[in-house]
Amino acid sequence: MRADARKNRDHLLAVAGAAITEQGVDVSLRDIARRADVGLATLLRHFPTREALLEALLHNRFEELTRKAGEFETSGSPEDALVSWLRDCVAWTTEYRGVTVLMAAAIDDTESALHASCVTLRAAGARLLTRAQEAGTARSDVDGADLFALIAMLAWLGDQPSLAPRADHLFEVVADAILVRGASGHAEG
Amino acid sequence: MRADARKNRDHLLAVAGAAITEQGVDVSLRDIARRADVGLATLLRHFPTREALLEALLHNRFEELTRKAGEFETSGSPEDALVSWLRDCVAWTTEYRGVTVLMAAAIDDTESALHASCVTLRAAGARLLTRAQEAGTARSDVDGADLFALIAMLAWLGDQPSLAPRADHLFEVVADAILVRGASGHAEG
Repeated sequence: MRADARKNRDHLLAVAGAAITEQGVDVSLRDIARRADVGLATLLRHFPTREALLEALLHNRFEELTRKAGEFETSGSPEDALVSWLRDCVAWTTEYRGVTVLMAAAIDDTESALHASCVTLRAAGARLLTRAQEAGTARSDVDGADLFALIAMLAWLGDQPSLAPRADHLFEVVADAILVRGASGHAEG
Repeated sequence: MRADARKNRDHLLAVAGAAITEQGVDVSLRDIARRADVGLATLLRHFPTREALLEALLHNRFEELTRKAGEFETSGSPEDALVSWLRDCVAWTTEYRGVTVLMAAAIDDTESALHASCVTLRAAGARLLTRAQEAGTARSDVDGADLFALIAMLAWLGDQPSLAPRADHLFEVVADAILVRGASGHAEG
């Protein structure tokens, strides 16, 4: 990419990021173009779909969450690693209001620009879950797809102004639901 | 209400119910009016807001869920009553795609036409929860507002085509999270 094209793209991403932080992922692409002082056609040449724009915005975050999952795989107790990573995922997805719905749709839609990142994220969570299951500290009847759905549910909760005050508490309730209680090594303490 | 006004209103409700079942609660009010062969102004005279239309459509369901909660309060074990009622709530809210978001907003918005029904529903759930807590079979750190949020989360899950296949399984996981395991009286059996 030529330097000026790169500069234009970065400018569009900065404007889009600010607009989405303010108004959520449903913000009008036309508004983003207007705020960036370009035509809609220019915006669409860089990012042909809303998902492509979000993938460009979120790619580093997706990579960071996947990298973190890898780190957690080799540090701490399997159940602490799983819960810490889940907490990071939920905290992150609630930053961009509405992204959860797009991610939920993308996980099944191979045409979506967000598909690959969502699949990678689900696989990273599944590895942490399997490790906790092998240690006997997570329910054996949940899998990576369940985990992805639970993250989406909790992130959605954080998006609803009236329900968001319960989000942290219900995260703990749901985390307890995944973990096998009384099997987390307390007896050894 | 005069007989012809009642007839017009019932016709609008029937058309609206069909449209919402097909397209979810975000269906355009203008489309509903067109399908009912009336002007938008006529529709708005009967139902000034989307919430007012939904309240009219859902009022009987809300009453039925509240009545069921009352029945469950005096029958069966407290934990079975709670879980059965939760299952009914989630099944019902997933029938009208998107209603969960409106209900979540209405619980805090005294101006919403759905507010009173949502508050009544939350209170009915809280009574079932308290009964199970008093029997020692539900977590003591959840309350009616948490229960309402959990119902909303599970209903939202059922609304997402890619996640819906996990909805029944995750209902059981979340129900287990509310119940105190090993305290459900199995020892008596």
